[in-house]
Amino acid sequence: MIYQRVALIGLGLIASSMFWAMKRRGVAGHVTGYARSAETRETARRIGLCDTVCDRLADAVRDADLVVLAVPVGAMEVVAREIAPHLKPGATLTDVGSVKQSVIDAVGPHVPEGVHFVPAHPMAGTEHSGPESGFATLFDNRWTLIVPEGADEDAVARLEAYWQALGANTERMDVAHHDLVCAVVSHIPHLIAYTMVGVADDLGRVSDQEVVKFSAAGFRDFTRIAASDPTMWRDVFLTNKEATIEILGRFTEELFALQRAIRQGDGDHLFDYFTRTRAIRRGIIEAGQDTDEPNFGRGKAAG
Amino acid sequence: MIYQRVALIGLGLIASSMFWAMKRRGVAGHVTGYARSAETRETARRIGLCDTVCDRLADAVRDADLVVLAVPVGAMEVVAREIAPHLKPGATLTDVGSVKQSVIDAVGPHVPEGVHFVPAHPMAGTEHSGPESGFATLFDNRWTLIVPEGADEDAVARLEAYWQALGANTERMDVAHHDLVCAVVSHIPHLIAYTMVGVADDLGRVSDQEVVKFSAAGFRDFTRIAASDPTMWRDVFLTNKEATIEILGRFTEELFALQRAIRQGDGDHLFDYFTRTRAIRRGIIEAGQDTDEPNFGRGKAAG
Repeated sequence: MIYQRVALIGLGLIASSMFWAMKRRGVAGHVTGYARSAETRETARRIGLCDTVCDRLADAVRDADLVVLAVPVGAMEVVAREIAPHLKPGATLTDVGSVKQSVIDAVGPHVPEGVHFVPAHPMAGTEHSGPESGFATLFDNRWTLIVPEGADEDAVARLEAYWQALGANTERMDVAHHDLVCAVVSHIPHLIAYTMVGVADDLGRVSDQEVVKFSAAGFRDFTRIAASDPTMWRDVFLTNKEATIEILGRFTEELFALQRAIRQGDGDHLFDYFTRTRAIRRGIIEAGQDTDEPNFGRGKAAG
Repeated sequence: MIYQRVALIGLGLIASSMFWAMKRRGVAGHVTGYARSAETRETARRIGLCDTVCDRLADAVRDADLVVLAVPVGAMEVVAREIAPHLKPGATLTDVGSVKQSVIDAVGPHVPEGVHFVPAHPMAGTEHSGPESGFATLFDNRWTLIVPEGADEDAVARLEAYWQALGANTERMDVAHHDLVCAVVSHIPHLIAYTMVGVADDLGRVSDQEVVKFSAAGFRDFTRIAASDPTMWRDVFLTNKEATIEILGRFTEELFALQRAIRQGDGDHLFDYFTRTRAIRRGIIEAGQDTDEPNFGRGKAAG
């Protein structure tokens, strides 16, 4: 057992997966949970998510050795302010937000003396959301980034041990680098996927029905991440503005270069570019971060 | 049996899948195959791909009732010119190219009197290529677009029956619409995926190793289609220039609108956009064109 009492604030995909992963290996003694919506709390009680589901934030965090903020990034400050007076001295406060500078700015000022604030970010997810979307293996062999920013070393090491007990690998990173890396591997891919799906949906000359029917030709891969939780992603882009816009600039620059190659009929440029990108795919397969089965192993009939 | 003798020209993912799908249901009596590369022909013989593997194009197509051009779009003209004198009167000539106007322009002029040219395009594939990448179920429940362009009705209907026997649904489409639809559901998604992977690979401040390790946060979905055959995709973009550039224009327009919303902090715009795109994903699941399993059902441990 890593922590005696853990409080999960926000009961969506990440928190519910954390709960099932904790139960799988006895990582915590007792887990309380809180969600703002009464409906979510009701669902959590029905499916046995958390040992105790609390109707009030203060009750959830009182006595907790680890408090996990698993709410959208834009809601972190309000929650931090409300729980601050109720945190136990010596407790660790962490979060699972996809952006770190903004969370540190929002939460940091509210952290009481004697509470260890250790921001973290599990790099895992699915396109589903809500309290019923979680599962115990979500973090297995994935990476959780820890952004200590000067926090107490014992508290940081314990949070790392906790995430490893949930199945994840951990790596420490400074905050600016975290936000840039995530812009590259997560935020911009999501934005681009949303954009591509929006374009297809919006095109008068090609019907939605055609887009759906013929999606197996490539388009459907984009729709998975474009089905992710809109509130979470709105907050990510509002709070990781700088890195997002930097990477977006690089992306459009490259895209324009390829567009020019197409317009000019520069086949060598296209061929070289398309060859180079295969190596990254191989790296991901070899690192165990994806399957080599055709079409992600969707099943042969799904082709 | 739909055709007595079928010739497959080019023995990559599509042709090899066609062969196994033909064998699964006895769709053809005898299948000959030809590939330009001696190594590919050798592999085909070793794995039993085709009833007869021919070392010369003319031998493969002679006596065939159906000749399938399954070579990159840029190679269609050379092949068509070479086989033309050897085609059997009354035979059907078809192709599986991802672009249709350009194939019609390249192949059409070489089609002898008495041979029926019926362009087609199976909208299915995987990120793997070559003679060993094919499998019998690739076309099951996928769509093959038929672009008759005035071809003999009996020949068209027979080719439709053939594709249906391979497991596909078929739909007729005119050539310009075909090339536009494919730009939306396939060509631009591939170009964007290639670009995103290229940007990540090229970014000095984020290492390739980081990109690979943390790819489960979204990026890895893009890498599948960016690992597709570079020759095939080079030819697609060189030959579907007009539709590609039109859709690319729409894409960058939308992307710039989202970028502006991010810069201006317009959360409502982002939220509404991200909500709308979920509906398309639902449509694709309901149409049986993708799985609703989290992460494409990559397997729970792969998260």
